Amino acid sequence: MVNVAVLGYGTIGSGVVEVLAKNKEIVKEHTGDEIRVTRVLDLREFPGSAIEKILTHDFNDIADDDSVDIVVEVMGGTRPAYDFVKTCLERGKSVVTSNKALVAAYGPELIRIARENRVNFMFEASVGGGIPIIRPLLRCITADDILEISGILNGTTNFILTKMYNEGSAFEPTLKEAQALGYAEADPTADIEGYDPCRKIAILTSLAYGRFVDFEEISCTGITGITSADIAFAKALGKKIKLFGSSFKQNGTVYAEVAPAMIGPEHPLYAVEDVMNAIMVTGNMLGNVMFYGAGAGSLPTASAVVSDIIVEAKHLDENIKIVMEPEKMVLGDISKATSRYFVRLPKDAEVSFPVEEELSLPDYPEYKAFLTGEMTGAEIAAVSEAAFIKLR
Amino acid sequence: MVNVAVLGYGTIGSGVVEVLAKNKEIVKEHTGDEIRVTRVLDLREFPGSAIEKILTHDFNDIADDDSVDIVVEVMGGTRPAYDFVKTCLERGKSVVTSNKALVAAYGPELIRIARENRVNFMFEASVGGGIPIIRPLLRCITADDILEISGILNGTTNFILTKMYNEGSAFEPTLKEAQALGYAEADPTADIEGYDPCRKIAILTSLAYGRFVDFEEISCTGITGITSADIAFAKALGKKIKLFGSSFKQNGTVYAEVAPAMIGPEHPLYAVEDVMNAIMVTGNMLGNVMFYGAGAGSLPTASAVVSDIIVEAKHLDENIKIVMEPEKMVLGDISKATSRYFVRLPKDAEVSFPVEEELSLPDYPEYKAFLTGEMTGAEIAAVSEAAFIKLR
Repeated sequence: MVNVAVLGYGTIGSGVVEVLAKNKEIVKEHTGDEIRVTRVLDLREFPGSAIEKILTHDFNDIADDDSVDIVVEVMGGTRPAYDFVKTCLERGKSVVTSNKALVAAYGPELIRIARENRVNFMFEASVGGGIPIIRPLLRCITADDILEISGILNGTTNFILTKMYNEGSAFEPTLKEAQALGYAEADPTADIEGYDPCRKIAILTSLAYGRFVDFEEISCTGITGITSADIAFAKALGKKIKLFGSSFKQNGTVYAEVAPAMIGPEHPLYAVEDVMNAIMVTGNMLGNVMFYGAGAGSLPTASAVVSDIIVEAKHLDENIKIVMEPEKMVLGDISKATSRYFVRLPKDAEVSFPVEEELSLPDYPEYKAFLTGEMTGAEIAAVSEAAFIKLR
Repeated sequence: MVNVAVLGYGTIGSGVVEVLAKNKEIVKEHTGDEIRVTRVLDLREFPGSAIEKILTHDFNDIADDDSVDIVVEVMGGTRPAYDFVKTCLERGKSVVTSNKALVAAYGPELIRIARENRVNFMFEASVGGGIPIIRPLLRCITADDILEISGILNGTTNFILTKMYNEGSAFEPTLKEAQALGYAEADPTADIEGYDPCRKIAILTSLAYGRFVDFEEISCTGITGITSADIAFAKALGKKIKLFGSSFKQNGTVYAEVAPAMIGPEHPLYAVEDVMNAIMVTGNMLGNVMFYGAGAGSLPTASAVVSDIIVEAKHLDENIKIVMEPEKMVLGDISKATSRYFVRLPKDAEVSFPVEEELSLPDYPEYKAFLTGEMTGAEIAAVSEAAFIKLR
């Protein structure tokens, strides 16, 4: 019998309890042992629910309970999640989290504490929800020099961009619609400004190169600047605009950024629509592989959490090595990386950059648009009045 | 130092040697030890090549060499591959193979022999080339009742179908073109009749349910019956025709088949074009996840082989459990599974099935086409003169 405590009975926590209950036999077969939720921490009451009798409001009830083998942290945020997780690891309990903020801020330290205490700290669900991406990156794509990781890592912004593309609508009303439908939060900042995918690409890049990438050092542009004109030009070019969380090697330097990208149908992420997520990984031998699925949602995310629980339950007294060295990785200055760009300018603006293709649209007579040759970020940023998006 | 011998210096074998040489440092970092190719078996000579000095024509040079830790079998076919692999496992050497025919025919026995000898038998590259799918299926998607696995598992047929779709061409000339371009073999039977994806879906289904699925019991239809009329009707419906290797649960019964499928843009496999492969896995909690990449090719396939070598090198005296019970899984009678269908009939034929949508095309006045309601395979097969394709 393996005993699990769940910190936080919200969307994901209740999903974890549900997955463990509904797929009990399957989980048991994979684990070789029964997994039982014995404690749930939440400040709220859940009268009449299945967890009523195992609910506690006091974290110490879990920290002090030696019968708890694995703790699932699904509260979100860094406080008190960090303190709770640290305490659990130090007391010899393995931890599974879905909390990207926690991993992006404290990953190396918590991985080290887990190793020192011969337990495990796992976080498959922290990126891409139910999509298996962290374990494949750590355990499968191991023979390659990783040249690029690019992901559609945020369902809210992908939903908005898909709707703007399909309906020709502007950003603001589309955001309001997404909020009304429950696809965007009342305060949508973390999504639309790209802070959410920024933490996720920091985690993936840290794992790909075995060294901590500080999300605060990643250049981060959201989608608030995308206009219906940009989308219309993209459409006329046979392309789409997606919000990419991305890291890539150029001349041996690793760059990372969150920024809108313009991609054509030949790109593996072109067909990723609505709230779906996907991550493309490019290896020097492998070429492109891509992982696709639901990037959020109670049960898909809980499925990934439970897959981590199963691994930890099978290795209760053995640390499975995850390399994420605490010394920060030095990222290249993104303004020095080169790319081709989509550029939109006022009709009469001067063009001072290499042009590969020019486009005008009757619906937007006030603009002209261009596809450029290779330029650095600094060069394109210096073009006055230009709205620009990287071609990927 | 971990010593590797390679059986077969063809496309994949030479790729393995190349990946290990080019990414030597990365492989070493992941393994924690150096991996060295010390023997290569091939009947041919390779004068002047890098492996000239370690080449042997005699398998016993490898079998008898106690310094060889891991043997890579990339010869293909079941004889003598089976005997060679069995001998190596019995002599305490771990084996990596990319050989789907070997795994589909002898998987459970070789997995057992590896376990009995405390070594490993791994075969990530046997399905989907470089795409990580076997390890994710075994180690990541473990919290779910797997409801469906559907894959575009054969690049040759996907290339042909993509070309027929884009150019409106017929099957035969497109096949000839694929042969001229090197995308189809001189004898294309294994691809176009679906025998290749049949072995692959047998392997995936065996792993998903932990029990041997005999590929000879899987209903297998290739793409030779697909006409340009079918493609034109599909296009008019906003759909594409893809060759699916598929297994799925219906009312608790597992069915498996290889057959053309008609899918719309909402299907995760719709955008998989040309020689690319992809596998969709549906879990009862997870929903759909999808894995995409190069399903063949020297370096992508070799990358997957080397990722297996790395795992085996890290566990030289420890068997990592893979469950594939030898008792055959009883598959449902595919003619009793239900589906909606695309049906093409001569213009004047009688319609004796439930119709949801009807279509005619000026370019093909001799036909009419229908989308049906739910029917069994037996019911649709009984419709005389009908060409039909499952809607997925």
